[in-house]
Amino acid sequence: MHRLSAILILMCSLFSAKAQELKSPNGEIIMNFMLKDGIPYYTLDYKQQEVVKESKLGFELKELDDLLDKFEIIDEKYASNDDTWEPVWGESKEIRNHYNELLVTLNQQNTDRLLAIRFRVFDDGLGFRYEFPEQKNLNHFVVKEEKTQFAMTGDHKTFWIPGDYDTQEYKYVTSKMSEIRDKMDSSIQHNASQKVFSPTGVQTALMMKSDEGLYINIHEAALIDYSCMHLELDDKNMIFESHLTPDAIGDKGYLQTPFQSPWRTVIVSDKAGDVLLSNMTLNLNDPCEYEDVSWIKPVKYIGVWWEMITGKSTWSYTDLESVKLGETDFSNKTPNGKHGATNENVRKYIDFAAEHGIDQILVEGWNEGWEDWFDKSKDYVFDFLTPYPDFDLKALNEYAHSKGVRLMMHHETSGSTINYERHMDQAYQLMNDYGYNSVKSGYVGNIIPRGEHHYSQSIVNHYLYAVKKAADYKVMVNAHEAVRPTGLCRTYPNLIGNESARGMEFESFGGLNVDHTTILPFTRLIGGPMDFTPGIFENDISQYNPDNPSIVHGTLARQLALYVTMYSPLQMAADFPETYEKYMDAFQFIKDVALDWDETRVLEAEPGDFITYARKEKGKDNWFVGRTNDEEKRTSSISFDFLSPGKEYIATIYSDKKDAHYKTNSKAYEIKKFKVNSKSKLKKICAPGGGYAISILSSDDPSELKGLKKL
Amino acid sequence: MHRLSAILILMCSLFSAKAQELKSPNGEIIMNFMLKDGIPYYTLDYKQQEVVKESKLGFELKELDDLLDKFEIIDEKYASNDDTWEPVWGESKEIRNHYNELLVTLNQQNTDRLLAIRFRVFDDGLGFRYEFPEQKNLNHFVVKEEKTQFAMTGDHKTFWIPGDYDTQEYKYVTSKMSEIRDKMDSSIQHNASQKVFSPTGVQTALMMKSDEGLYINIHEAALIDYSCMHLELDDKNMIFESHLTPDAIGDKGYLQTPFQSPWRTVIVSDKAGDVLLSNMTLNLNDPCEYEDVSWIKPVKYIGVWWEMITGKSTWSYTDLESVKLGETDFSNKTPNGKHGATNENVRKYIDFAAEHGIDQILVEGWNEGWEDWFDKSKDYVFDFLTPYPDFDLKALNEYAHSKGVRLMMHHETSGSTINYERHMDQAYQLMNDYGYNSVKSGYVGNIIPRGEHHYSQSIVNHYLYAVKKAADYKVMVNAHEAVRPTGLCRTYPNLIGNESARGMEFESFGGLNVDHTTILPFTRLIGGPMDFTPGIFENDISQYNPDNPSIVHGTLARQLALYVTMYSPLQMAADFPETYEKYMDAFQFIKDVALDWDETRVLEAEPGDFITYARKEKGKDNWFVGRTNDEEKRTSSISFDFLSPGKEYIATIYSDKKDAHYKTNSKAYEIKKFKVNSKSKLKKICAPGGGYAISILSSDDPSELKGLKKL
Repeated sequence: MHRLSAILILMCSLFSAKAQELKSPNGEIIMNFMLKDGIPYYTLDYKQQEVVKESKLGFELKELDDLLDKFEIIDEKYASNDDTWEPVWGESKEIRNHYNELLVTLNQQNTDRLLAIRFRVFDDGLGFRYEFPEQKNLNHFVVKEEKTQFAMTGDHKTFWIPGDYDTQEYKYVTSKMSEIRDKMDSSIQHNASQKVFSPTGVQTALMMKSDEGLYINIHEAALIDYSCMHLELDDKNMIFESHLTPDAIGDKGYLQTPFQSPWRTVIVSDKAGDVLLSNMTLNLNDPCEYEDVSWIKPVKYIGVWWEMITGKSTWSYTDLESVKLGETDFSNKTPNGKHGATNENVRKYIDFAAEHGIDQILVEGWNEGWEDWFDKSKDYVFDFLTPYPDFDLKALNEYAHSKGVRLMMHHETSGSTINYERHMDQAYQLMNDYGYNSVKSGYVGNIIPRGEHHYSQSIVNHYLYAVKKAADYKVMVNAHEAVRPTGLCRTYPNLIGNESARGMEFESFGGLNVDHTTILPFTRLIGGPMDFTPGIFENDISQYNPDNPSIVHGTLARQLALYVTMYSPLQMAADFPETYEKYMDAFQFIKDVALDWDETRVLEAEPGDFITYARKEKGKDNWFVGRTNDEEKRTSSISFDFLSPGKEYIATIYSDKKDAHYKTNSKAYEIKKFKVNSKSKLKKICAPGGGYAISILSSDDPSELKGLKKL
Repeated sequence: MHRLSAILILMCSLFSAKAQELKSPNGEIIMNFMLKDGIPYYTLDYKQQEVVKESKLGFELKELDDLLDKFEIIDEKYASNDDTWEPVWGESKEIRNHYNELLVTLNQQNTDRLLAIRFRVFDDGLGFRYEFPEQKNLNHFVVKEEKTQFAMTGDHKTFWIPGDYDTQEYKYVTSKMSEIRDKMDSSIQHNASQKVFSPTGVQTALMMKSDEGLYINIHEAALIDYSCMHLELDDKNMIFESHLTPDAIGDKGYLQTPFQSPWRTVIVSDKAGDVLLSNMTLNLNDPCEYEDVSWIKPVKYIGVWWEMITGKSTWSYTDLESVKLGETDFSNKTPNGKHGATNENVRKYIDFAAEHGIDQILVEGWNEGWEDWFDKSKDYVFDFLTPYPDFDLKALNEYAHSKGVRLMMHHETSGSTINYERHMDQAYQLMNDYGYNSVKSGYVGNIIPRGEHHYSQSIVNHYLYAVKKAADYKVMVNAHEAVRPTGLCRTYPNLIGNESARGMEFESFGGLNVDHTTILPFTRLIGGPMDFTPGIFENDISQYNPDNPSIVHGTLARQLALYVTMYSPLQMAADFPETYEKYMDAFQFIKDVALDWDETRVLEAEPGDFITYARKEKGKDNWFVGRTNDEEKRTSSISFDFLSPGKEYIATIYSDKKDAHYKTNSKAYEIKKFKVNSKSKLKKICAPGGGYAISILSSDDPSELKGLKKL
């Protein structure tokens, strides 16, 4: 035992009897930390109600004594913080980072090893992380499992998807915690790559509601150099416990001191909207790492994409079953006649984007390799450099630039991160050479290196490696099938998008649940924006592909609302240009809606039922309101008190007609214009699967307001 | 069934009754291929003696029917080849590629899948490989196991090391095949990374000798995009069967048609020397892939290396137990005072090299990260870019260049191929920037991606990726701990060295067997040159490090012989400059000995006992002879009939004194000069662990010859 700990053992007696209490700045949330028989525990209360019961903390290590018990407290430090920072892009102009902090340092007496836990209590919840100081007896070690508990106070209503090492693209299940086990089997839909690990394993962000009306959300923040956490439920005792994603040999983390884990977060409130407005996840991430962020800008885009998703077109140029990059000469091969990324087709999209003020055009299927890219465990699957013969890389980019728009790059990796890393520099350089500034990347299928998972430590590191390297080339990244976001966009704001959940594409693969987008903001979006790709006006997919009987589970008006309710600095108008041409009055909302915001308010919210957001456009006095509904007909009641008092605005309301229904009459929308001010109120019936969108544009010109009815 | 095979089935009856015979050009070797009950077999005879008995061929596939039986022959094509080619460097100026070939195409009747086998019979043995044509029913597939048999005719004497997925650095065991199982446990010495898979698993190149006096060698050639083959012995039936190295999830190969396996080779002769002289492995590789090879040159080098291997110096700059690249500021840290790669020390080596005509100076431990590089599963372990504070990258290279020599780069990866690939371009660019043209790379420890093995398909691909990328920068590669060579240096001649066996370094880790270097040319060197790093004059390691009681198992004279017997275009003088200063008369041989050859002869050879080589220097009429001995005192008898008739040469003989012994009197050498011609003969007693080296320099100047005795 070294001298320090000998001294500190004497001090420990002072601490050991009592718990360490940490209150939120407003005093409403209280975290207590305690050692009982050398085992660390914490609890969390909100307004005198228990939120997290006594929950253990610690680690199982590989080939070393576990860090679970025999601890003594050797130090505790309190601190607090209150400042504000400005995100490069975001839901509000400024974010306040206000918390009280406790750093407890523990010594494990039998091993003389140090483990510290840093707690931060905000007005919206608790974050804590493990810290492993540099020390004599613990330098490099392997985590067998993290053993962090979240002991719930009852059998809460839960919005969950199955825990999986490789995908988050599941339908949400709304059930009691106690029902998870029985509902697990039926909740597992087939995905491109998946590994479900437990009958009670679920993913974060996990949203819950207690019988007492508390809204509770468990997630993590700042997932860096660590494996992604799932939660496994002990459904006898209603305790969730951390379950990390293993690597190919079953290990869960290779750590070197000094090291800190990601933050474990518990957001809690008696108002659902507070969960949506919580900035805790971002606050627990580090400030922006880049000095120059002038090249990072929100993006509105269309894409040669939905035609492949619906089955009308193909990504591949030919119908060959097997091709080899650098060996197959595509110029000699017969095209299949259904290739989407052709010069002619892309020009059509470019023209549409240029005409309607859309910034970029995503083109998928532009590069060689799509014939056998999927499910073949093919390592050298794409080179990210070589276009098919019918895609003129140079000419199309020049054409786009001549019209004031850009193409968006697409890098599908097929899960082969090794191959992607081998080509990354050249691929980003090619983007620079041709004037691309953003890339949609994809990780469909099993990961190569084989045995690794989408959410294991080394692949989590890959995603960040790709984002940081992209920054070297001033490239913005929108990574699909990557690990779920945990607020890293604060530190690396060129990570402008992620998928990491069932997105719109599943409407064409059989359909989303109607309540899907009333849950996502409470779950998936807690960690960061989602490239959900809204804006599908034609809900009958068979109009595009007679062989596809899928329908979109939302009305056209609701499609517009998603641009407001599904926050993202990257928004796609996902449907065909020719469809938008048919509904140009509704498309006007997509043209108008902002991508970046000064302020965000939640006007109405209940997870799984409905959400109504109002957001103020960055740097302008315009507001946009969006409302989404589940499968029930519901009435929304909102006040416009967020508007500047005494000022008149022009509100354009895009809403469901009375007889609208997502299934039978999804395109029954109406558009009405009104004068509104801060005293205006709106009561609006929303169709099953419906909703509405409102643009509220400030007007200093009285003639514009003339003739408009007051709302 | 497609039409082609329907037609061919008719033709099959013509073939099915008889075996397909293929003879070597000289008619002495005969391969027979046959189907028996739909199962493919081959046999091999040499001078009417059976060498390989009926042996099965085929594959077990994952999730598909095995390719083992139900075959019919649908095509057979005979061909032959006789040409010569010039290697960029090698043991002879020209290599004759002379063989007869049979390509048998099989159709598996139940699956309608094609499998072809290409046999080539040379005068020195058999090579065959599997070929998977592009076809309808087999595009992408996964190999569960290759099932190639080598059925031996008896219980041969075998020179083997344990089969292992991660290391070849074992002592050779000489035993009967039937004794392998009992001797396996005692044959497994601890290594930095190892995975032994079977009590009868052995590695290739496997050397054998039959009771009838046949020398048989089994190996593979052109190992590309495939996992490395081991041999597993069925010791009831004396059948070796292929055992491929698995990846992290147990799979053995991801193949896409058209594809061909590496060649499986059987060298056979009744003269041991013929095995040493066989060029079959090179001949079965593709011609050189590079147009410009002017930058590829043999290299003689010294290095800041043996002082670390003996424990006198350290690779690391400090004694810290844990460092982080980019975070640990080494300029603030206390050096340990034992760092080898210091400016002062490297200058000393540069001076020595410049004075004695040595081309390059390897410097290990020049870059940050050596404090915790090993056995920590540390991913970001080196950046290959950042020198320690006491190594001035710019100044030292400039100093070397000013003296007409170069530094040799060192890239230890610690097995983290992911990290190496991330830094490879920058690392090679740095070499270009500072004037390095060769790199020693290393793969010590477990591979990252974790679960992969040193010899699995994807890591085999990594090594070649590194070599090809090096070529982009005109860099020569000497890869240690990489997969054993299989003749790829023909195609990629910038692969100038590999380790892939116990090298000299083990003399400092407890010692090599005395017969080690009389076995290596029959095993490890069959696939390509080895960077064995000979030339250790001070055999008592405790002279360098009092804590290291190891001794070198060979006399000083034998150390010199190794430059001839252990063929490599890359030869190190591995001992300390100050030691060489003490034995400058002996060091003269190292200065004189050539690195590249017009012609090579084996004068005497018996695996495990002794080897005597004579080699003619490329482009000059100088010859060098080397003789190595096992632990017995033996007499060597050679004739100089390889010399040009009628011409006189000056022979300098470096040999053991009468009382020399590798253990007790290793430095007892004598140097004598003689006149020799093609009629000269030499009878020389070699000490236990001894040998001799001879330089035979042509002289057109009679005065040089004057006063020299005739041998």
